[in-house]
Amino acid sequence: MPMLKDPSRKYRKFPAMNLPNRQWPARTLDVAPRWLSTDLRDGNQSLPDPMTFEEKKVYFRKLCDLGFKEIEVSFPSASQIDFDFTRFAVETAPDDVYIQVLSPCRPELIKRTIESLKGAKKAIVHIYLATSDCFRNVVFGLSKEESLELATSCAKLVRSLTKDDPEMAATEWLFEFSPETFSDTNPDYVLEVCEAVKQAWSPTEEQPIIFNLPATVEMSTPNTYADQIEYFSTRISNRETVCISLHPHNDRGCAVAAAELGQLAGADRIEGCLFGNGERTGNVDLVTLALNLYTQGIYPNLDFSDINSVIDIVEKSNKIPVHPRAPYGGQLVVCAFSGSHQDAIKKGFKQHEESKSEIWEMPYLPLDPQDIGRTYEAIIRVNSQSGKGGASWIILRNLELDLPRGLQIAFSRVVQQETENVQRELHNDEIIQLFRSQYHVYETPKKEDVELVDYTQLNASKNSRVLEVILSVKGATVESKGEGNGPISAFTDALRKAFGCNLVVKKYQEHSLGKDSDSKAVSYIECGVTGPSGVVQDIWGVGIHEDVSQASFLSLISVINSAIEKKILT
Amino acid sequence: MPMLKDPSRKYRKFPAMNLPNRQWPARTLDVAPRWLSTDLRDGNQSLPDPMTFEEKKVYFRKLCDLGFKEIEVSFPSASQIDFDFTRFAVETAPDDVYIQVLSPCRPELIKRTIESLKGAKKAIVHIYLATSDCFRNVVFGLSKEESLELATSCAKLVRSLTKDDPEMAATEWLFEFSPETFSDTNPDYVLEVCEAVKQAWSPTEEQPIIFNLPATVEMSTPNTYADQIEYFSTRISNRETVCISLHPHNDRGCAVAAAELGQLAGADRIEGCLFGNGERTGNVDLVTLALNLYTQGIYPNLDFSDINSVIDIVEKSNKIPVHPRAPYGGQLVVCAFSGSHQDAIKKGFKQHEESKSEIWEMPYLPLDPQDIGRTYEAIIRVNSQSGKGGASWIILRNLELDLPRGLQIAFSRVVQQETENVQRELHNDEIIQLFRSQYHVYETPKKEDVELVDYTQLNASKNSRVLEVILSVKGATVESKGEGNGPISAFTDALRKAFGCNLVVKKYQEHSLGKDSDSKAVSYIECGVTGPSGVVQDIWGVGIHEDVSQASFLSLISVINSAIEKKILT
Repeated sequence: MPMLKDPSRKYRKFPAMNLPNRQWPARTLDVAPRWLSTDLRDGNQSLPDPMTFEEKKVYFRKLCDLGFKEIEVSFPSASQIDFDFTRFAVETAPDDVYIQVLSPCRPELIKRTIESLKGAKKAIVHIYLATSDCFRNVVFGLSKEESLELATSCAKLVRSLTKDDPEMAATEWLFEFSPETFSDTNPDYVLEVCEAVKQAWSPTEEQPIIFNLPATVEMSTPNTYADQIEYFSTRISNRETVCISLHPHNDRGCAVAAAELGQLAGADRIEGCLFGNGERTGNVDLVTLALNLYTQGIYPNLDFSDINSVIDIVEKSNKIPVHPRAPYGGQLVVCAFSGSHQDAIKKGFKQHEESKSEIWEMPYLPLDPQDIGRTYEAIIRVNSQSGKGGASWIILRNLELDLPRGLQIAFSRVVQQETENVQRELHNDEIIQLFRSQYHVYETPKKEDVELVDYTQLNASKNSRVLEVILSVKGATVESKGEGNGPISAFTDALRKAFGCNLVVKKYQEHSLGKDSDSKAVSYIECGVTGPSGVVQDIWGVGIHEDVSQASFLSLISVINSAIEKKILT
Repeated sequence: MPMLKDPSRKYRKFPAMNLPNRQWPARTLDVAPRWLSTDLRDGNQSLPDPMTFEEKKVYFRKLCDLGFKEIEVSFPSASQIDFDFTRFAVETAPDDVYIQVLSPCRPELIKRTIESLKGAKKAIVHIYLATSDCFRNVVFGLSKEESLELATSCAKLVRSLTKDDPEMAATEWLFEFSPETFSDTNPDYVLEVCEAVKQAWSPTEEQPIIFNLPATVEMSTPNTYADQIEYFSTRISNRETVCISLHPHNDRGCAVAAAELGQLAGADRIEGCLFGNGERTGNVDLVTLALNLYTQGIYPNLDFSDINSVIDIVEKSNKIPVHPRAPYGGQLVVCAFSGSHQDAIKKGFKQHEESKSEIWEMPYLPLDPQDIGRTYEAIIRVNSQSGKGGASWIILRNLELDLPRGLQIAFSRVVQQETENVQRELHNDEIIQLFRSQYHVYETPKKEDVELVDYTQLNASKNSRVLEVILSVKGATVESKGEGNGPISAFTDALRKAFGCNLVVKKYQEHSLGKDSDSKAVSYIECGVTGPSGVVQDIWGVGIHEDVSQASFLSLISVINSAIEKKILT
């Protein structure tokens, strides 16, 4: 085996922040932030196969429908396609949606970028400059002073070409500056640059400047990022004229946490992508952030009530699947396979229905699947790890049969055997089929099964019933007469005589099926069956009929059929 | 569009903790925790198609090879397969690996569970009982007192069947108790239960009791989970006899953060799965946690230096793919498509090689891909979003040609055109092919191309060179003579006469190729070419040859071939 090298010589520990009076750990999330989708820019630039123009159009419309009011659509100076798509967005955006575009701090590219926005109702010009030592030295070869000067002069240029240009007055202009690699930059230097940029732009309380503070690469635990945000938020001057925006990436798997803790630390706005698309490990996932708020009782101002349609567009456009375990969106997320989980969920639903509570409190299900356009049917899925709860849930949901506990256990053994045989999950229709064949409950009875042809109650006294029963056994008619202190015992007696066996009723239960006039009854019965060979076995039977008595007779016939199948009777 | 309902009536906000003196936000991660893999238990029970016995064996061996010393292998009382697999693990585990098994708090199941461990060298018996109000009331119907009593009596039962049983003395027994749904339970009640269980077990400092504190469902931001852990850690008595274990799930996408902040808050041990498999959104991802430590200079005691072999086994066993954007493991995670990222990475590598620094500090790449068994080749991938950096990186890595900036820009336009034509990413061999055909640099020249057959330097004076040049043009031999103040200008002159064009050299650059005796030289040349029609165009040419002079002549021939292809010359 190769061994990982000693990392302490190669990797530096990210320095913690000394912030003794930090306030964020004691705060809670109370409001939804401003959202910016960068699916079409940061998301798109990270795809092996970027979106086509047509895909971008569909995606853009979906973002508007979901409720996004700020959408970064492109990097217009990078290619003609990006420029052209910006024109499309400018021309078709709803009146209340800001079109945002990105440009590096290069005057000729900024000019081209602003050209692409001409005629927009609302626009955000977003420029960026990396401020960390590593980027300044290695990538740009700029000193701290030169970087500050470049950022400031570019902010002035944007100003002169937008809000200061009378010909551009038809547009509401906002301005965003990103000190790229913020989280890896000396926090005082970030403040210095941002103060200078702010002065160059002159924001107002009504139209604050957006300072977007990216974790360009996630480099620390999310509490450190939150410290950095709080440090910035509590020190930038004229805080009321500043909107603090976060742009977390997910390199350490903590982008969602970084965004949430960053909000506690003072951030007002989040940039990210649906299902966390974006460079490398992706941008922060806006679906998760929004629904995390939702399940805390806060309306996120984004509508994911039809999440499947969102998944559909995202997967088609990105050509990257949403992972089966992605929070909220993943296909396996509202499922339970294990027996104990299924059992708890089953009980939770029962309690929820009985209590008629408005509050959603369900074991293992933090979100009501119906709130995102999913059904309850997929919640419980059955494989070899499932216990009695799962299969009986499927039977309850599909056939309305509320199996007694003993029958649940008996049937779960049958299901487990089958899952081990096929070595995979069983689908709902397979479980239903298994139930029908195990208990001989068919809508049309099987030819080889024993059938009840007719019965007559001959007389009834206080302590005794006599039944004449006509059965069809392998095509032949068999008549039998039974006596007992009630109809079930009389019918049991008739069967004893017809099949030469002992038959002892051990458990019996019934309930109605359906609610209206054509409702039926279902009977569950467990019998100890002793055949001619002397073998004794406990067997469950199920019978369904409009008439309660006949349902119980059919459940006994069901026992007989099972006993024949198991070769206890012949 | 359907709209999400007002969630404030349906979902409760998770209560924050009042912990005014919390210490964790000021701490940093300094040591690796104890790791417990529950891939074979919690992971396996959540799969649509659970692992076969054979797959579990392969997986178990891999976990041992990776360095796991605590492995939860099964739920032995749930099925014969789980029981049998426990026997396999007991019989084949390395001496220093603890086999852990799970049982609910039910005496008959605990007995069966401990049976499965007979003869183990090291074993951990793990029992669980849900303690939250919701689970106690809805699922179990147990009061607080009854739950506490059940947990305590089960701890005593485990004790009597393991460390107190002289027949079981060959095994080193550890005991783990999980108050399931910990994060949703009143923290003082958790302490009360755990104190009672601890007293029942009587742990020592050498063999502490493991209290595993799960976020069975992730219900809060991770700082609240950390508060809960710190609350427990600072209040449980005889802390030195207690190992605090975390078991975070990922319902809100913050499991990794919860585990990291929980460690800051006092946890000693983490339970999770490789690549975050597990119920619903999964358990916390141990690959991410381990490599997060690694890139902070802390050796994680787990070896992911051959991550592809881990991915391979995980995907085969779980039948769920590792997402392309999964931290560290995802296929897109060590890639850059966008021009500015590629440019920065290219500069970073150059700086890294020149500085010979031991420290890894690379734009956009927090981990050296070679540390997890990946190559640098996949880092830069080229599509329509890529700029000059990407394609020239591919050419540098594959052909060793370090293109001048002007040629990088010219070639990137060719590449961008092609990516827009094919509407997808270009593979390395396609980019190399594109470069060869664009600049007519073939290993075997193409029939239709102009070829240099021979040349003779006739005489040389201080200020003048005369060259006789023999070319093959469309199969015919063409001779020409040129004069100039050096070999390049003389050769250019000869070409001018042969093709009736104007040819002005604008830029010229060359470098050696390869390091040993058969090293070659490569020449890059940019010429302004004016054809008979009067069209002027700047064209780059590339020539490679053992002889430096001839390399430069070939670069001029390359210009001529491009000019003919562009129909500037005929």
